[in-house]
Amino acid sequence: MLWCGWGDPAKARELPEQVRGLLRDLLGVRAPDAPAAALESVRLPPVALTPARLEALAGVVGAEHVRTGHEERVRHTRGKSTPDLLRIRAGDGSDAPDAVVLPGSHEEVAALLALCARERVAVVPFGGGTSVVGGLAASARDGFAGVIALDLARLDRLRSVDAESMTAVFEPGVRAPDAERLLAAHGLTLGHFPQSFEYATLGGFAAARSSGQASAGYGRFDDMVVGLTLATPSGTLELGRAPKSAAGPDLRQLVLGSEGAFGVITALRLRVRRAPAERVYEGWRFPSWTAGSAAVRALAQDGPTPTVLRLSDETETMIGLAKPDAIGSGGSGGCLLVAGYEGASVSARREAAAAVLARLGGEPLGEEPGRAWEHGRFSAPYLRDSLLAAGATVETLETAGFWADLPRLYDAVRLALLGALGSPLVMCHISHVYETGASLYFTVVTPQDGDPVAQWERAKTEVNAAIVAAGGTISHHHGVGRDHRDAYAAEIGPLGVAVLQAVKSRLDPAGILNPGALVAGP
Amino acid sequence: MLWCGWGDPAKARELPEQVRGLLRDLLGVRAPDAPAAALESVRLPPVALTPARLEALAGVVGAEHVRTGHEERVRHTRGKSTPDLLRIRAGDGSDAPDAVVLPGSHEEVAALLALCARERVAVVPFGGGTSVVGGLAASARDGFAGVIALDLARLDRLRSVDAESMTAVFEPGVRAPDAERLLAAHGLTLGHFPQSFEYATLGGFAAARSSGQASAGYGRFDDMVVGLTLATPSGTLELGRAPKSAAGPDLRQLVLGSEGAFGVITALRLRVRRAPAERVYEGWRFPSWTAGSAAVRALAQDGPTPTVLRLSDETETMIGLAKPDAIGSGGSGGCLLVAGYEGASVSARREAAAAVLARLGGEPLGEEPGRAWEHGRFSAPYLRDSLLAAGATVETLETAGFWADLPRLYDAVRLALLGALGSPLVMCHISHVYETGASLYFTVVTPQDGDPVAQWERAKTEVNAAIVAAGGTISHHHGVGRDHRDAYAAEIGPLGVAVLQAVKSRLDPAGILNPGALVAGP
Repeated sequence: MLWCGWGDPAKARELPEQVRGLLRDLLGVRAPDAPAAALESVRLPPVALTPARLEALAGVVGAEHVRTGHEERVRHTRGKSTPDLLRIRAGDGSDAPDAVVLPGSHEEVAALLALCARERVAVVPFGGGTSVVGGLAASARDGFAGVIALDLARLDRLRSVDAESMTAVFEPGVRAPDAERLLAAHGLTLGHFPQSFEYATLGGFAAARSSGQASAGYGRFDDMVVGLTLATPSGTLELGRAPKSAAGPDLRQLVLGSEGAFGVITALRLRVRRAPAERVYEGWRFPSWTAGSAAVRALAQDGPTPTVLRLSDETETMIGLAKPDAIGSGGSGGCLLVAGYEGASVSARREAAAAVLARLGGEPLGEEPGRAWEHGRFSAPYLRDSLLAAGATVETLETAGFWADLPRLYDAVRLALLGALGSPLVMCHISHVYETGASLYFTVVTPQDGDPVAQWERAKTEVNAAIVAAGGTISHHHGVGRDHRDAYAAEIGPLGVAVLQAVKSRLDPAGILNPGALVAGP
Repeated sequence: MLWCGWGDPAKARELPEQVRGLLRDLLGVRAPDAPAAALESVRLPPVALTPARLEALAGVVGAEHVRTGHEERVRHTRGKSTPDLLRIRAGDGSDAPDAVVLPGSHEEVAALLALCARERVAVVPFGGGTSVVGGLAASARDGFAGVIALDLARLDRLRSVDAESMTAVFEPGVRAPDAERLLAAHGLTLGHFPQSFEYATLGGFAAARSSGQASAGYGRFDDMVVGLTLATPSGTLELGRAPKSAAGPDLRQLVLGSEGAFGVITALRLRVRRAPAERVYEGWRFPSWTAGSAAVRALAQDGPTPTVLRLSDETETMIGLAKPDAIGSGGSGGCLLVAGYEGASVSARREAAAAVLARLGGEPLGEEPGRAWEHGRFSAPYLRDSLLAAGATVETLETAGFWADLPRLYDAVRLALLGALGSPLVMCHISHVYETGASLYFTVVTPQDGDPVAQWERAKTEVNAAIVAAGGTISHHHGVGRDHRDAYAAEIGPLGVAVLQAVKSRLDPAGILNPGALVAGP
């Protein structure tokens, strides 16, 4: 992973001249004055942990698994939001952990938490490092003897497969591509393909309630979790004896989305599916966002449901963002819908869905737009790096709501962005549908001003307030982290916050777990 | 509702001579010595609430909505488990509330909770009164100034329908048949048909995580809840801004299953479906429980999923319990499977499922067994009354687990019952299926001994321990109440219990809400 951007540096992409032209002529983007900092010049705070404490940590995991080197600390500083990248590119490593600690077992995680609670060392659990909502900043230092990043990379095994129950037990540090590779040997798949797929871990998916591009067919990640183990400073929770139960509240659903603030997930029992023999993705054009929205709603409510279902608004269609490899080549008007079918009875489902889409005003575009989407499905974060370097701020944000509320929510977000940023490029798509509602995923491009972090934070504050006021949820699949904490508090109200604080106080009385994320301290 | 049994007394059923013969010859059941008590002779504790407190309650809801009459108190004494019926038939009304209080709005519920917290009056929320796990016993009197049943019958409105989002907002006291009638006017349905359908309320379904006979098609009730309002002594929670969210833990799932111990549900936003134009139920015979189980698993994992899917074991098939109107007429051997199809593309789904069932050893029996099941689908509780009067204890219990664990769980429950009761009749069916597992629903018939309540409680304790030891959940859809509390604590462990206690302490610091249910006090 590129330390100051996304992904494999070998896959970095130069911006096509067409896109440079668009940025210059449409948005007035100019190249930034200063180049990005070099890795070795990133400014880090001194290591606050005493040698005795570092030694105590080493006593749990072994000295080779307690790391305080410059590069390790830089690589565990924050996540991959645009402000995160802007800060680290500017050489600001102020949110770095004092040490990176790599436990090798549930028992070591539990022992680390006990030690850190005793010594008041803050713990930021770290999976793939792909948070885009400030879930990983080791910024809350007041009152702590130091902060460690608890990197779960060594917990990377597929423990068992139960082919009869169609479940698999994984450790939390398994990256998504490795999970798919390990399951493929059994003819199985999770079917979870978020944009962070190449780097994100299963534990992170669970902790932040990830949702993948094929969620219409495979469900959200929280739908896949049928059991889990959570190590906390107060002991271990083992949850999930059956797919569903009436035995009280579903405590699994209290852990999912807890973002490391309640404990560290050390095992996940996941529902798996048979690997699909067939995959087809295709494109449709709708005359308008309204018509396209009605079509995806019809499929979500009355079926048949495609495995992948994505509708771009007019702007996103025009820019061609559904096909990041061919940005700028859209422009044929209307709204592009991508529908994908995987698994059994592909042709029957495709045919039945096609009848619905055609009846509701869709024009079939064949498989080419589907192939283009598939080819570029993980490319957007690479593209962002190039845009940042070129002087554009590009960031995404998302929400969800009930169908009847979506038009108001769509307008509210757009208006807030326009109000805060002048004339940014604002694009949107629907990519996660339910019977009762859907998500809205926005991409914003705007010229960087002299302080692009502050510029974006102002805009983000406006947008968050607009989402809350319009009745949407503050996040459909990015999570809360630190960036959404205040808006989340407004969403669930003071009593909802108090409930979460009560749970946190019981599981983490010393308040060492990811302090500042999810909810403010009690 | 019959005060000492189930349902509409006009629908009471005499036992056919064939069944009497079975009871006598197969099980040795004899008519009990004493007849059931008369309503007026049920022994109630004196009303513990002072006149001043009763007046304060009347100040909130109006004097006509605070009731202390004998019949009202008897009718709110416990629920409808077999021990509940045995006790009330014996004239034991010791768990009666001091008063029945009927609020007319969310505000009145909130005011009642504040008043009761101040005055230390325990509150047992009461919907349809159909709990079979001791969820309604006003038994925890120590330290309280009295106990009220908070009857939600007046909160009986359909507030709004959102046909675009396919949701409807209901008050909690709406009974299931009324909900279906109100929705039918809009061409909609919930599709939730548990055996308690005729009397249970929507609030009760949510509070106890009900699951209906058509759960394969319509989902569990907790799947239907997209939003809710919870009144608590500490304030109000408003949850559910979107079908799904990554904004933190799903707090809806903390309220669902909380059984009145955290607060009182005063509104529910539910996912609705279009009322099905077509319904077909049919029967299949499988040579064995193992073969039948493999067939329902195949449908659950690879589809197509019927709307109703139920497989009876050999004993249940022989007795004919899947067709309560025709008990004793089974006996054709093997295991009866009932599959039902509702809604769109009935014939295509039926045909595809038939191919799977036939391939896995099923023999089609046509629609007659399906019609018989449908006709008798709500009859079993009526039949139980007749069996109790005839001197048989008949009770149901249920669990769920992952597919690979089900054979062990099935054996464990049967062995525990045989060990505890001698030679009872034990029947089982699978009626709720998931990709990763299923529920097991047992019906037990045994001759009453001199103390049938104690006799059953001994057996139930053995079964609960067996379920926990075999890795199943203590309830798939009946809930925890008081009867499952200890087993539930074993299921989620001391830290799970501590989390629930922390939540309860925050929402209900005085501990007035349904004391003794779900979890022990902190």
